[in-house]
Amino acid sequence: MNNFSFYSPTKFVFGTDSESRCGYLVKEFGGTKVLIVYGGGSVVRSGLMDKIKLSLAAAGVHFSELGGIVPNPKDDKVYEGIDLCRKEGVDFLLALGGGSAIDTAKAIAAGVPYGSDFWDFYSGKAIIQKALPVATVLTIAAAGSEGSGDTVITRTDGNLKRGAGSDLLRPVFSILNPQLTATLPAYQTACGAADIMAHVFERYFTNTKDVEITDRLCEAVLLTMINEVPKVMKNPDDYQARANIMWAGMVAHNNSVGVGRSHDWNSHGIEHELSAMYDCAHGAGLAVIMPAWMAYVMKHDVMRFAQAAVRVWGCEMDFGNPERTAMEGITRFKNFLHSIGLPVSFGELGAKEEDIPLMVQSFGIGEGKTGGFVALGKDDIDAIYRLAL
Amino acid sequence: MNNFSFYSPTKFVFGTDSESRCGYLVKEFGGTKVLIVYGGGSVVRSGLMDKIKLSLAAAGVHFSELGGIVPNPKDDKVYEGIDLCRKEGVDFLLALGGGSAIDTAKAIAAGVPYGSDFWDFYSGKAIIQKALPVATVLTIAAAGSEGSGDTVITRTDGNLKRGAGSDLLRPVFSILNPQLTATLPAYQTACGAADIMAHVFERYFTNTKDVEITDRLCEAVLLTMINEVPKVMKNPDDYQARANIMWAGMVAHNNSVGVGRSHDWNSHGIEHELSAMYDCAHGAGLAVIMPAWMAYVMKHDVMRFAQAAVRVWGCEMDFGNPERTAMEGITRFKNFLHSIGLPVSFGELGAKEEDIPLMVQSFGIGEGKTGGFVALGKDDIDAIYRLAL
Repeated sequence: MNNFSFYSPTKFVFGTDSESRCGYLVKEFGGTKVLIVYGGGSVVRSGLMDKIKLSLAAAGVHFSELGGIVPNPKDDKVYEGIDLCRKEGVDFLLALGGGSAIDTAKAIAAGVPYGSDFWDFYSGKAIIQKALPVATVLTIAAAGSEGSGDTVITRTDGNLKRGAGSDLLRPVFSILNPQLTATLPAYQTACGAADIMAHVFERYFTNTKDVEITDRLCEAVLLTMINEVPKVMKNPDDYQARANIMWAGMVAHNNSVGVGRSHDWNSHGIEHELSAMYDCAHGAGLAVIMPAWMAYVMKHDVMRFAQAAVRVWGCEMDFGNPERTAMEGITRFKNFLHSIGLPVSFGELGAKEEDIPLMVQSFGIGEGKTGGFVALGKDDIDAIYRLAL
Repeated sequence: MNNFSFYSPTKFVFGTDSESRCGYLVKEFGGTKVLIVYGGGSVVRSGLMDKIKLSLAAAGVHFSELGGIVPNPKDDKVYEGIDLCRKEGVDFLLALGGGSAIDTAKAIAAGVPYGSDFWDFYSGKAIIQKALPVATVLTIAAAGSEGSGDTVITRTDGNLKRGAGSDLLRPVFSILNPQLTATLPAYQTACGAADIMAHVFERYFTNTKDVEITDRLCEAVLLTMINEVPKVMKNPDDYQARANIMWAGMVAHNNSVGVGRSHDWNSHGIEHELSAMYDCAHGAGLAVIMPAWMAYVMKHDVMRFAQAAVRVWGCEMDFGNPERTAMEGITRFKNFLHSIGLPVSFGELGAKEEDIPLMVQSFGIGEGKTGGFVALGKDDIDAIYRLAL
């Protein structure tokens, strides 16, 4: 196990009708003028927006709005939000929605007190030193942004999808009401599930030795997803299954299951090019990429993949041929993703073979290599896209 | 899953030599005048105290000391600490040691700003509304107090061992260096392990349905302990095993594995009478009591005990006779505790049958019942003590 720091100061308020405490919580955490950041009209149509406004007003908190955040959120809304906050003296960001609204709110929160272009944090030119407080009311279990300090934004100019992170961006509170996820279409629910499982796997495949506690915690989240997601596919109103998935999604990405070990975020990176290119759901792209990435890197540590196969996927260990077990685990993962309605190939996603060179180029590592488990160069990235055809 | 709030704002700094950052961290969290709370001379002899003082001095932080905290810590040191803090204007509590030092520091932290007797929080007469910040440098993996808001103190007058809790008592930071636990005698290491496993089991045995995510997380911690503790028994210097146990001990008790479900703390309560009576190690008392409690309540939910037997203890499910599987799990737990050198009976602990009526009386439920999994009356408590003979 490596040395680490872990700091997750978010207050999670979980359960039925928890959004009614929003105004009270904003006040508790010192907000007086809030910018509500949200996506399309679904939070309005569902009545959530009205409930939140009522709750804020009852607590004597003022608010403005910034709607229209799209999936794979863009920088234009961040700039708009930063201007708005400065003009109106906003001191608190409140995201209603999923990862897109939350990640935009985080970008605004970091950008407001920063003297230059907020994109500096995403291009690696600057480190976040200060940020307004961010809070969330979550409506989809997926990105884990409600408990993490991470944010991913796409720059319109050049179609660059990049991440930034800081403990300063961890939400001060997050409201998680599983009821709010019940109206999600099956496809989006499945995409969220793929994202959650990817967040665990990208921590699970590590070169760090002696990480039993985090291995077991990772496996706990994956076993939960395997058990609960099919229930929701069968019955979207299954509150209990939604609740288990929603909390699993937070645990998967606040890094409590990933401390003290190296990670490998190449699957996320390779996928980001897909969703930047086709504007597909991030989870759908991950369902295509992750099994291909796994098959490509599997020989680097067959026993780790065999461990996942046995402990997570319930495979029987083939002691004479561990590689067979390892591969069987990957196959079961792919079958699982397919069984919940996700694409597992370029064809099913609507991606095109001829775009691969462009995506490899946009991945942007030039002649270098990247990856904490297996360092990959541009030829490897190319090969993984082709494995996913 | 039940509705819940979860708030664990402690900054954990984990790994080799992490204690050298202590002064810097105190300053980061606003401490200017610290009271160092510790137990016997081991933190002095090991050189830890000197390192901490050096680190505080380098950060320009002033400090006083309160040593002599004993296992099953007493109220007298709390009163002494409160007086000292008020007299010297202490604004920050720093515990060096294990649960006893930390729980005493927490009691002092709550007592200083309180206008009346701090024992009010432990007798249930008052709720903690304010507390000085507390931080810890942990030297034994056991109590989990480094990540929890809980504290247990024994009142000398009447030998009452009682707990109190508040999110306000969660440490602002905790330094966890597994190296500091390497010199612990085997018996104390084993007692700590029993305490950690008990913290999980008291959350695991629940009447709340549909708690897959926390079930799996609980099992993850238990599986880790079963894998790692025997390594340390064989080789006390096994840093990696110590590290896994140390982090498991935090995870076991900051309630991340216990949210959204009812708990049952009767084993802890029944044990508290043992350690109050004989001043035995809390973990040793738990090793005696927990298997007895499990055997006594097992029939209340045979399938839950069978689940633990299969998932945690690796038993094969007897589908024709689940009770046999459930019992086999309890037997394996008892054998495990014995194999790491712990007492599993009154005789081995040095407890006496004739003291049972006194302990039942001191347990203090009169004609009432208590327990979140199975409500137990005084006759049940009596029977559990006798099962443990």
